[in-house]
Amino acid sequence: MLTVDQAQHAILEHVAIGPQHSVPLDEALGQVLATHIDSDIDSPPFDKALMDGFAVRAQDVADGTARLNILEEVTAGSVATNPIGPGEAIQIMTGAPMPDGADAVVRIEDTQVENSHTQPVVSIQTRPVSPGQDRILQGTSMKRGDNVIPKGRALRPQELGLLAELGQHTVDVYRQVTVGVLATGDELVAIDQQPAAGQIRNSNESMLAAQVRASGAIARKLGIARDNREHLAEKIQQGLDCDVLLLSGGVSAGRLDLVPDQLQAAGITQVFHKVQVKPGKPLWFGTSNNTVVFGLPGNPVSSMVCFELFVRTALRRLAGLSPATPNPAFARLDSDFEFHSDRPTYFPARLESHPDGPTITPVNWHGSSDLRSTTLANSMIHFPAGKQLYQANQWVEVHLWAG
Amino acid sequence: MLTVDQAQHAILEHVAIGPQHSVPLDEALGQVLATHIDSDIDSPPFDKALMDGFAVRAQDVADGTARLNILEEVTAGSVATNPIGPGEAIQIMTGAPMPDGADAVVRIEDTQVENSHTQPVVSIQTRPVSPGQDRILQGTSMKRGDNVIPKGRALRPQELGLLAELGQHTVDVYRQVTVGVLATGDELVAIDQQPAAGQIRNSNESMLAAQVRASGAIARKLGIARDNREHLAEKIQQGLDCDVLLLSGGVSAGRLDLVPDQLQAAGITQVFHKVQVKPGKPLWFGTSNNTVVFGLPGNPVSSMVCFELFVRTALRRLAGLSPATPNPAFARLDSDFEFHSDRPTYFPARLESHPDGPTITPVNWHGSSDLRSTTLANSMIHFPAGKQLYQANQWVEVHLWAG
Repeated sequence: MLTVDQAQHAILEHVAIGPQHSVPLDEALGQVLATHIDSDIDSPPFDKALMDGFAVRAQDVADGTARLNILEEVTAGSVATNPIGPGEAIQIMTGAPMPDGADAVVRIEDTQVENSHTQPVVSIQTRPVSPGQDRILQGTSMKRGDNVIPKGRALRPQELGLLAELGQHTVDVYRQVTVGVLATGDELVAIDQQPAAGQIRNSNESMLAAQVRASGAIARKLGIARDNREHLAEKIQQGLDCDVLLLSGGVSAGRLDLVPDQLQAAGITQVFHKVQVKPGKPLWFGTSNNTVVFGLPGNPVSSMVCFELFVRTALRRLAGLSPATPNPAFARLDSDFEFHSDRPTYFPARLESHPDGPTITPVNWHGSSDLRSTTLANSMIHFPAGKQLYQANQWVEVHLWAG
Repeated sequence: MLTVDQAQHAILEHVAIGPQHSVPLDEALGQVLATHIDSDIDSPPFDKALMDGFAVRAQDVADGTARLNILEEVTAGSVATNPIGPGEAIQIMTGAPMPDGADAVVRIEDTQVENSHTQPVVSIQTRPVSPGQDRILQGTSMKRGDNVIPKGRALRPQELGLLAELGQHTVDVYRQVTVGVLATGDELVAIDQQPAAGQIRNSNESMLAAQVRASGAIARKLGIARDNREHLAEKIQQGLDCDVLLLSGGVSAGRLDLVPDQLQAAGITQVFHKVQVKPGKPLWFGTSNNTVVFGLPGNPVSSMVCFELFVRTALRRLAGLSPATPNPAFARLDSDFEFHSDRPTYFPARLESHPDGPTITPVNWHGSSDLRSTTLANSMIHFPAGKQLYQANQWVEVHLWAG
């Protein structure tokens, strides 16, 4: 039986980065850049004033006091028509280009304009001024030709701002993949139905579709497949239009666990079945030329955890994210915790911030069917197999849940 | 001048929770629950098998070995027609209701069915079986009447799964607010234009619209308002249709900083102007009966930081999130860092996970116009005002950026 690491590597070996396309910048939030972005400009594009005030020669105001002749006013978007010389200043606004000859800005709060003369004069009373004060030089943030955003980066607001500054009004990103969600089982009823004896509502579909969306992919709900070969085969066929197909249920060792057989009958080649993990051991994974297929266990917490550990890895790879396996976090256990399992276990837990670092508290978890416990949690602790008393304040590995 | 805390409190005093409406469960990801959710069912709704195998009386398999008569098979979705008595077992699937009389499940891997007799028999060879093995009792996860999800919770995949289990196919959430984004300044050109001397592209609009979307609200782009009263007044009028209006630029002390005047002329009452914060000191905030308005500074990093500290607080309140001000995180400084500022400062930084806890590294930041530096960061360190040498490994307050 594969370990979690081996299963993740097998997934990465069998899933390739998806195709790319060009989208308007406004639709690119959260999508993954498919090309390296080089700057074709210096930023700032000119020496720029960082404050409203007066552009001066620092040496004229070295002691903080001066009376200077005002040559003109430069607003943002315009350019000074004169250079400044000794004893001269130009009124300037934040963001405007520095006039030639000026090497510092004195803030407007520290100035007084005297308009009583034919030649307007500014009287300055401030701290000693050094060259460069409240001015940023052309190319300080980035220079023409710099690689500024690497391929494989998920685009956040600041990258979209930078791409806008560079004039990239469209951007090459990896295409969002479509993920079909198919719950299986005769015990399931739709969420707007009243369950009869022995039945439960199809909670996995809503949960998995939301996990898909929280991962930046497009969810397609395929309803419920019943525990018979014909209906399951028909539903699987519908799902093979998707880039990724998730089934839940029907992958254990039970008499009616038909999913692996029917997937192989539909042309999906099994890569692995079963992983040394709790919850989620019955996980099935296979691929065809067009579709990546996960058979997730039917219990909701098993399905959820397998999504976080395995499906997310496939989605990150398809989306072009680098690295495809997300990094774990680490936190200190809130109190002593004795734990025993025959398999490595991902235990629902609550991560909290504190001034001396994050703490983690396992929630009261009743096993793989106990979805409610996960609503008290925001992450899961990774405990290795075996029996151990974990001490309060011990650092443990934590996987944050999305959403 | 208000402190950051005072400004956030002033925002919360002047912004009320928005209206609520009902949406299909499938559209509720990331939205905020407007009612407490009580369970109207027990979960599980019956004593349930957690594994595929045989439902037994634990006392019959106390030593791990038994031969039991198989009465029938219960698949998921069906119910046993017989109770089991001494020496009897019922084959059962994961998720199926436990038959009366059974109190444990023996996994199918540890069993062998003998079909050679008229009465089928299961031969069991396993570890000693205790009552409750691989069975979960009705109501273990939640009981009818339990409050299971509190009002004010942002809905994640696990809450959507739980709501589905409860049959909540529609759900009451706070309405998503619409946020207008209006950049001001004669120096700005659209992102698909080539800037002339002294001009720059309108990066703030793309960045702020993305921050709005990353906060779960709806962004409406209003283009560029020029630095004259008529054009600015016209654009502000367009923005007053929105629940929230963000302007960037035009709030400093410069001659053409018309925004505060024009907002008040449009019927927006100023709540505060200027905050003791770097970057972002010129922030303006006001409200009318219908619209919450922020005048953000024009430099992109100032705009971005003011969004994170102040606009996000307003959006969280409008969205019904509790608490409205997000909790900071904490991390250890990666190396010594000397810092000096006359105002409390939010410094772009990179948070990273390590086995002994998170570290934080300030990026090479060239001030409020240096947007590129923020693409190297994922968070900001909060440094108090003053001059201090921060030591490597010292815990500092960190604010994670969204997106």
